[in-house]
Amino acid sequence: MQTTDSPTLELAKDLISRPSVTPEDAGCQDLMMSQLAPLGFAEEKLRFGDVDNLWARKGKDSPVLAFAGHTDVVPTGPEKNWDHSPFDPVVEDGYLWGRGAADMKGSLAAFVTACERFIAAYPDHRGSIALLITSDEEGPALDGTVKVVKALEDRNEKIDWCLIGEPSSTKVVGDVIKTGRRGSLHGHLTVHGVQGHVAYPHLAENPVHSVAPALDALANEFWDGGNDFFPPTTFQITRVEAGTGSNVIPGECLVHFNFRYCTESTAESLEERVVAILDRHNLKYDLTWQLSGRPFLTDKGALVSATQAAISKVTGRDTELSTSGGTSDGRFIAPTGAQVVELGPINATIHKVNECVSIDDLDTLSKIYEQILIELLA
Amino acid sequence: MQTTDSPTLELAKDLISRPSVTPEDAGCQDLMMSQLAPLGFAEEKLRFGDVDNLWARKGKDSPVLAFAGHTDVVPTGPEKNWDHSPFDPVVEDGYLWGRGAADMKGSLAAFVTACERFIAAYPDHRGSIALLITSDEEGPALDGTVKVVKALEDRNEKIDWCLIGEPSSTKVVGDVIKTGRRGSLHGHLTVHGVQGHVAYPHLAENPVHSVAPALDALANEFWDGGNDFFPPTTFQITRVEAGTGSNVIPGECLVHFNFRYCTESTAESLEERVVAILDRHNLKYDLTWQLSGRPFLTDKGALVSATQAAISKVTGRDTELSTSGGTSDGRFIAPTGAQVVELGPINATIHKVNECVSIDDLDTLSKIYEQILIELLA
Repeated sequence: MQTTDSPTLELAKDLISRPSVTPEDAGCQDLMMSQLAPLGFAEEKLRFGDVDNLWARKGKDSPVLAFAGHTDVVPTGPEKNWDHSPFDPVVEDGYLWGRGAADMKGSLAAFVTACERFIAAYPDHRGSIALLITSDEEGPALDGTVKVVKALEDRNEKIDWCLIGEPSSTKVVGDVIKTGRRGSLHGHLTVHGVQGHVAYPHLAENPVHSVAPALDALANEFWDGGNDFFPPTTFQITRVEAGTGSNVIPGECLVHFNFRYCTESTAESLEERVVAILDRHNLKYDLTWQLSGRPFLTDKGALVSATQAAISKVTGRDTELSTSGGTSDGRFIAPTGAQVVELGPINATIHKVNECVSIDDLDTLSKIYEQILIELLA
Repeated sequence: MQTTDSPTLELAKDLISRPSVTPEDAGCQDLMMSQLAPLGFAEEKLRFGDVDNLWARKGKDSPVLAFAGHTDVVPTGPEKNWDHSPFDPVVEDGYLWGRGAADMKGSLAAFVTACERFIAAYPDHRGSIALLITSDEEGPALDGTVKVVKALEDRNEKIDWCLIGEPSSTKVVGDVIKTGRRGSLHGHLTVHGVQGHVAYPHLAENPVHSVAPALDALANEFWDGGNDFFPPTTFQITRVEAGTGSNVIPGECLVHFNFRYCTESTAESLEERVVAILDRHNLKYDLTWQLSGRPFLTDKGALVSATQAAISKVTGRDTELSTSGGTSDGRFIAPTGAQVVELGPINATIHKVNECVSIDDLDTLSKIYEQILIELLA
């Protein structure tokens, strides 16, 4: 049992206690700066719309290693389903519990403390260290990283290596890093029926009845088989909503769904196939699409090598290069030519109730981040 | 063109001008009593919760013919969608326009004026005439007719014939009367999955995907074929709701549905069959039931005969006996052993904007009600 909190755990708790549901930052970036500024990081606040973004850089030279992350968290759902209040961080049974513990306030804390130790040991390191932090990674992601990247490109400021703190690990810290991501495509479907009284169904047309077999067909479709770098494309319904009153046949049914897709499919091919399935079910509908990001891949290079070496030195583990999982802001950074790797804690509880992270893993993660800094910038 | 309003039209206008949205009575029952008391009706106010009920009876003997109705109306929706203000009755193009014109303030007025003429002509009629009026037929119906019936049963006061003023007619007044109603059974289903990130579907379980084929099966099930008196049982989904966020696989999916069922099925048999279908689809779920009313039927007897005879004498029309349509307060009165018939104006505009009733139909309806009184009590 630890009797005092490690600096990483302490900062992680401070961050979790700020209820920064997207797009709120709730003071997290200021808290991080309060520890980064004394290390020599220059703060640049970039607020777009209602999103707080932070670009903090130490050093003027190349190469630039940027840590990218987000202070925002997904909603908690009903708090009664949580064992502990989600914004009241608790350490119990060796875990830190709270919304954002794993995704990704633990990573933010681990990188800040890694910088503290690295800079103390290597005050005259080469290149630059930067942090690109947003409060809109979990939301629409329109005023977050994408706009910061644009601002950097406009003034020709370049990131060479981008280390993203997304929770990449599956069973133990460092067992998996992400070297690319699938694309993400959202569909918003409105199925039109005819509203009416439940007692007179022949005068109405129930859109929930019409859409049910189409949803079943979409959920069971084989989209593709993936390839060497990517797992197969997946389809998930994220929202369904219809209902006017207890004795009313609804007039419309809304369905939102999302594809995570690999390079075996394209956004365009998936859109066509969905339309074909809907049309086969004779639905009257409107359908709009939102392409969150096309797939990207960093399958080798100095950043991947340094990350693998750091994990091996700190934990003795071999690491698997993966492209599975959710989108990350890497989709905005990779197109600039930066190498992009994602490394963070175990992702088993992210976006769920009772989100948590092992407190030992937090310290291990911080050591790995420190070692990556050593490998690349010492 | 009429130059002066008939007594029925005049009373209907007075009633419509009182904005008695459920559970408000807005003085309608007092207005009716002001015309019934001089005829010898004894007034008994029965207020339960926030619902005004009226039991008015003339005579102490059997048989008792009770007219049942309601002074409450459904909400208007946005008044801007109405051609005339819904509580500002207007006569135009031969129609009386306003909320409640057809459902059922026109019927209330028609019965009151029918009583005036009948009692003037037959001051020493046999039996008793009664009115059972509530202000909660369109709402939860918990403190309305069901409680008045209970109060009457508790003191052994019996209704032999119950004439309900619900708008039963479809094309012309009296073409259809309702001699029974289907049962209504509500089901509230919660399908449980496992919430998770859309990018990690193998760590989650999407309840919308699980329930879709079950909903399709329920929507396409043949429940029964109806019988001579009732149309087949129908099943309709009235609400479906799932969704936590745009990148979250929902943890639960709510589904509300309703059966309108005939005497070929029972609430119990339908419940069993739904459970069997859900279980066949391997769902994890909770399911609760709410039985709004069992089916009832008055397929023959003195009241049906008198109603058919009255319609024929006043209009020359044959009438169709029907059990279709929504529930009515007949479901509370029929179980006491009373014969129950519903007869009212054309139902084409009920619960809609621009609700209206033909002013000629109002007078015809009043004559039919008068003739029913003659057939049974003269």
